Amino acid sequence: MKICSSKRSIALRQSSHSPIGVFDSGLGGLTVVRELRRRLPAEEILYLGDLAHLPYGTKSTAEIRRLSTNCARFLLKKNIKALVIACNSASSVAFKLLSKMLPVPVLDVISPAVEEALAITRNSRVGVIATYATIESGSYARSLEKRSPKAEYFLKPCPLFVPLAEEGWLDDAVTLEAARKYLIPMKKKEIDTLILGCTHYPLLEKVIAKVMGPKVRLVDSAVPTALRLKTLLQKERLLYPRVRHAPLRIFVTDHVRNFARIGESFLGERMKTVQLVKIP
Amino acid sequence: MKICSSKRSIALRQSSHSPIGVFDSGLGGLTVVRELRRRLPAEEILYLGDLAHLPYGTKSTAEIRRLSTNCARFLLKKNIKALVIACNSASSVAFKLLSKMLPVPVLDVISPAVEEALAITRNSRVGVIATYATIESGSYARSLEKRSPKAEYFLKPCPLFVPLAEEGWLDDAVTLEAARKYLIPMKKKEIDTLILGCTHYPLLEKVIAKVMGPKVRLVDSAVPTALRLKTLLQKERLLYPRVRHAPLRIFVTDHVRNFARIGESFLGERMKTVQLVKIP
Repeated sequence: MKICSSKRSIALRQSSHSPIGVFDSGLGGLTVVRELRRRLPAEEILYLGDLAHLPYGTKSTAEIRRLSTNCARFLLKKNIKALVIACNSASSVAFKLLSKMLPVPVLDVISPAVEEALAITRNSRVGVIATYATIESGSYARSLEKRSPKAEYFLKPCPLFVPLAEEGWLDDAVTLEAARKYLIPMKKKEIDTLILGCTHYPLLEKVIAKVMGPKVRLVDSAVPTALRLKTLLQKERLLYPRVRHAPLRIFVTDHVRNFARIGESFLGERMKTVQLVKIP
Repeated sequence: MKICSSKRSIALRQSSHSPIGVFDSGLGGLTVVRELRRRLPAEEILYLGDLAHLPYGTKSTAEIRRLSTNCARFLLKKNIKALVIACNSASSVAFKLLSKMLPVPVLDVISPAVEEALAITRNSRVGVIATYATIESGSYARSLEKRSPKAEYFLKPCPLFVPLAEEGWLDDAVTLEAARKYLIPMKKKEIDTLILGCTHYPLLEKVIAKVMGPKVRLVDSAVPTALRLKTLLQKERLLYPRVRHAPLRIFVTDHVRNFARIGESFLGERMKTVQLVKIP
């Protein structure tokens, strides 16, 4: 796929005034945007929720790559200075591809979470919960193994957590029962750190913490990803130069019921404008 | 959209030897295929599961219509003699459109279920459970109202039931808890008949029956839809003329994990060949 005539020609157009592009298959990525808004309030953010193709977590690798490329291409046309793949399924299978292809820095949400987890674990026993696509891609296993070959890792797909978060059953008996079913086998492995490997899962943090108990630290990728982006923009001299409360522009590929209600609970602020766009 | 140069030119090519086309966003429609195979074993069936766009139930009306049209167009090219929309969300918003557009008879899954429910209710209090898209389209409410204006109807979206069925938690504590949460308010309305308005829901019949109790009859659209198709083919002299165990051909628009395992539990037979196809 050809995005532009030359990497350099696009890269030269980016400046500290350019926005940051963020995409996800749906609403989960707004938990990452929330953290970006907290840590980088002067940066304009363009968020693309590919709702027409939600969820990515059940799709094939080839399909997730195709959809991710389309999202990246859409945001790149809006002259972004960096791209955050705020979706674990897309980060798992499309990060390398997009990093090579795009003329701007690309961040995933997996390596920041893995580094954070390895920094805080004391007994080197780390759990990861995520969608089927993310777990089966092997991305967490490879990333953990590379950084700490001696540690022990336990992975578990929790596919019900996404629809439970979207239904808004955040602290509910059904969610608690599902969490017990998924997580008690992992608790028995005596992990002390659990990576929430899906951007929807922070919404269920309360229930997950209740099942795992106070000795297990939960790692949400949003905070380390926001910190990594800040460091990167500083290094590249791409931070917006003035103090401001920058705009957030939200694009979606389909209208979905309850989008505003659920989205705002993920984002932690009002969504002023949501624009429907068509991408291939 | 133009499908062919004239309705008549295509209609003339159909014969009793032509296959029946069935589509759904995913696997749920296989519960309808199962019943078609039982009642019409000599008919060849072409099933299209639009897995790349699964689920339809959370998408907008415009998007469901666009996707349904693409599915119908794909099957029509394979010279089908009738089309069954084995998806309640698609039946709700695309049935009229496809009926007008296609040169072959089109069946939905809503009106057969509604007629069955009204035939068996004794107290004229009927419940419907379905996806958000189906409930919000108003298709069940309109169909019930039209046929029996004096009866009372109670509708409830149960979005968690689809992922619960796909996770295979068919008779599980989590599913029972979710069913209680969704259904106890409906039970209190003293309905005696409950329409399972989503082709995934028959998989959860056991749990739904447990919550609703023995006085409530459950209506699955598969049986009345298969009977209606049989009557229609007889009337149009389109029934396959000999006794045989006809082939079932399955097409999918994306590979999805556990497709065979889950699909076979829906279908009740082995899936011999599954062909990946690309549709727009």
